Amino acid sequence: MTPADAHLQIGSLLFEGLDQIDLTGPYEVLARIPDATYRVYGRTADQVRDVRGLRIAPDAAIADAPQLDVLHIPGGLGQEALMEDEAVLGWIRRQAAGAKIVFSVCTGALVCGAAGLLKGRRATTHWNSIHLLPFFGATPVDERVVVDDGFVFAAGVTAGIDGALRLAAMLRGEDVAQAIQLYMAYAPEPPFDSGDPKTAPAAVLAEARRAVADVTARREATARRVAARLGVAVG
Amino acid sequence: MTPADAHLQIGSLLFEGLDQIDLTGPYEVLARIPDATYRVYGRTADQVRDVRGLRIAPDAAIADAPQLDVLHIPGGLGQEALMEDEAVLGWIRRQAAGAKIVFSVCTGALVCGAAGLLKGRRATTHWNSIHLLPFFGATPVDERVVVDDGFVFAAGVTAGIDGALRLAAMLRGEDVAQAIQLYMAYAPEPPFDSGDPKTAPAAVLAEARRAVADVTARREATARRVAARLGVAVG
Repeated sequence: MTPADAHLQIGSLLFEGLDQIDLTGPYEVLARIPDATYRVYGRTADQVRDVRGLRIAPDAAIADAPQLDVLHIPGGLGQEALMEDEAVLGWIRRQAAGAKIVFSVCTGALVCGAAGLLKGRRATTHWNSIHLLPFFGATPVDERVVVDDGFVFAAGVTAGIDGALRLAAMLRGEDVAQAIQLYMAYAPEPPFDSGDPKTAPAAVLAEARRAVADVTARREATARRVAARLGVAVG
Repeated sequence: MTPADAHLQIGSLLFEGLDQIDLTGPYEVLARIPDATYRVYGRTADQVRDVRGLRIAPDAAIADAPQLDVLHIPGGLGQEALMEDEAVLGWIRRQAAGAKIVFSVCTGALVCGAAGLLKGRRATTHWNSIHLLPFFGATPVDERVVVDDGFVFAAGVTAGIDGALRLAAMLRGEDVAQAIQLYMAYAPEPPFDSGDPKTAPAAVLAEARRAVADVTARREATARRVAARLGVAVG
């Protein structure tokens, strides 16, 4: 792990069609890590829109990023295009080779997988895509945050907040993470017990799966092409 | 409450120096409420930066907003300037007069207070500012989400997610809110029990209060001026 006194370069990847809270949840934490430079890097320097339309602009383009110590990859519908975007995948691969931690949120894990980073790893992603992890050579782990040797994987969407706080503690100690959590008033009181397929009402889950069936099928087709490219044998 | 079949106009206020997750946490929910038009409105149409630098652009300027059914006011350091910005306060006052729900997050409650909307109300805000609510004629309630007759107040920062899900259930029923919560995988597992002053380690809390003492003092001075303007007598 990084010595406590080393200045850290932390960067998040921004892309068209991301799920904004995969970025903005962790942002709240990453932007408050002491003695660090935190920047958001876009595929280009242009503003993008999240999957529901939120307009976010990067600080710089990925081509202008320094070697990062922490590389954060969010997910969201737009991740599918990235899975076959060699410009982005190559950047992720080169950054990951020099980074201390790669931190994926939600289907950002599939982008890391497409970059070839998941072979032999324990990983997690959104509940709706966790069955795709073996296409990248990973072992799916049904936990909210999975830490595996230089990788932190947060499961779906808001799990990025939990993952980022875990990461802050790893980088700067528990006191620092606790102070950030206090500032954020992160003592959640979800109004329903519906944030996990294991506890959500059956009808709500069935409708949710139905609503994303097309996305899931398309993602699986892409994952199969990636598996072939990576030489991963899947049944 | 709105008939279930009425199309809703939902709007969030974006301003320089907001705490981005006060906007983006609720965004994840509000953008998924069925049969609604959701837009982010800026003081102007220009991109702003959040208190830590995140670059977010509005969909339109407040001057171009229709009458909203739901008006969402985030907080963050930049709210202090809004407390004496009559252009924004007047807009909030006019929108609130026609809205079904005003939804404040964190110190967004103080902006609503400065617009004169809190007199006689039960309300909440970030733990570090809750003692300021009486300056606006409100009764502070130490709960994460407070619902008071057309108002939904979420406490600090990430409480906006809980508040937005409560609001979604009020507007469109529990099934809809549960489906959004499932999509968001909002089954939080905070790594520490440090998100509330009542449970945070004493040393972490003391340091947090010290770190924001200047901000708190400045906010109180502003709140006193607002109280005088509103004719609220505070001891």
